[in-house]
Amino acid sequence: MKKTDYEILKRSMPFWEKLSDTQKETVLYNTRTVKFSKGARIYNRGEDCLGLLVVKKGRVCIYMLSDEGREITLFRLEAGEICVLSAACVIKQIAFDVHLDAECDTELLILNSNVFSQLMNENIYVESFVFKLMTERFSDVMWFMQQVLFKRFDTRLADFLYDEMVKTGSDKIIMTHEQIAKHLASVREVVSRMLKRFSNDGIVELKRGAIIIKDREKLKKII
Amino acid sequence: MKKTDYEILKRSMPFWEKLSDTQKETVLYNTRTVKFSKGARIYNRGEDCLGLLVVKKGRVCIYMLSDEGREITLFRLEAGEICVLSAACVIKQIAFDVHLDAECDTELLILNSNVFSQLMNENIYVESFVFKLMTERFSDVMWFMQQVLFKRFDTRLADFLYDEMVKTGSDKIIMTHEQIAKHLASVREVVSRMLKRFSNDGIVELKRGAIIIKDREKLKKII
Repeated sequence: MKKTDYEILKRSMPFWEKLSDTQKETVLYNTRTVKFSKGARIYNRGEDCLGLLVVKKGRVCIYMLSDEGREITLFRLEAGEICVLSAACVIKQIAFDVHLDAECDTELLILNSNVFSQLMNENIYVESFVFKLMTERFSDVMWFMQQVLFKRFDTRLADFLYDEMVKTGSDKIIMTHEQIAKHLASVREVVSRMLKRFSNDGIVELKRGAIIIKDREKLKKII
Repeated sequence: MKKTDYEILKRSMPFWEKLSDTQKETVLYNTRTVKFSKGARIYNRGEDCLGLLVVKKGRVCIYMLSDEGREITLFRLEAGEICVLSAACVIKQIAFDVHLDAECDTELLILNSNVFSQLMNENIYVESFVFKLMTERFSDVMWFMQQVLFKRFDTRLADFLYDEMVKTGSDKIIMTHEQIAKHLASVREVVSRMLKRFSNDGIVELKRGAIIIKDREKLKKII
């Protein structure tokens, strides 16, 4: 394994120092680099059991897919981030279907699922890390779903941004998240989180005290 | 603490044997029994920080609530089951709002949130248990949301059951889950899980090879 790969692995695994020397060696020996082209399917729940993965380069989109092909993006992984949803065979608590795609040319470090499974059983720190990570991801997703299911807050926010753009004739909306929250009878935190999602989706760019509309068509689609 | 309470606590906490003697004593000393009447609000995310709770008697409903008062039941807790969502102040990973109500006269064992927080920090087995539990709950909820968001499978199943009831003129639908799945172009597992939800909601009763409609009005509402 290259020294840079080793560094990436170590940095992305907070439990690294809690591994025994044998466990560390096993991880290094069983981790391989795999390249995916832009748009390639990385993981299909039901078909594969990839194991634990770390993004070395690029970006990974994690989404759910309906029978009719509708997608809902759950979250995205950037370089240095780790994913365990790609090891549903190891973590029996994952009962729903997810898919992983490469959003651009992507390189992953993949730890074989058998070794990952063994590690989780042997080492309580690994187990705890995995469930903590899952809890964080799920909580984010739950928050998002709450907004969508209950308030269609994404629609309301998109609607507001679009109106402002048309009204001012500018792609740059000079307002704080706090001010937008007041207009929408919401709170700053909710506005900031949804704007962050819009930003991740390439719809807006967030500047200090301003929001730049980057993709009018995508914004319109939400409304 | 009563001997029965002690037994319930011990049984519901798989990490019990991993606690030190001091930690065990601290848990016992800081756990109190609290009674709630049917319909009482147990926990409001945002207002309280209750701590870890174990259902001694009765039933607890965990749900999300919209600004307009719409509810979505996430899951229910029966006697002997444990809940950590009521300790959002301790687990910073919980980013969304939940509420807990007593569905019938209910008795809870509640472990103070400060002690619970300390225990999680001190003992990796407690930490791992908590995140594992959260992962399980979230995964269930995600599965349910997936059905609702994508397929409205609840509607399709309710629709099918209602039609069968009308067609046969009987509240008893004599079919296996496998057979129903075939009718709905689904799989047995999905049908069984959704029927279990219907059963929890008091809409149906599940018998071997048959489904009894218990509440026509509730069933109709889903369609």
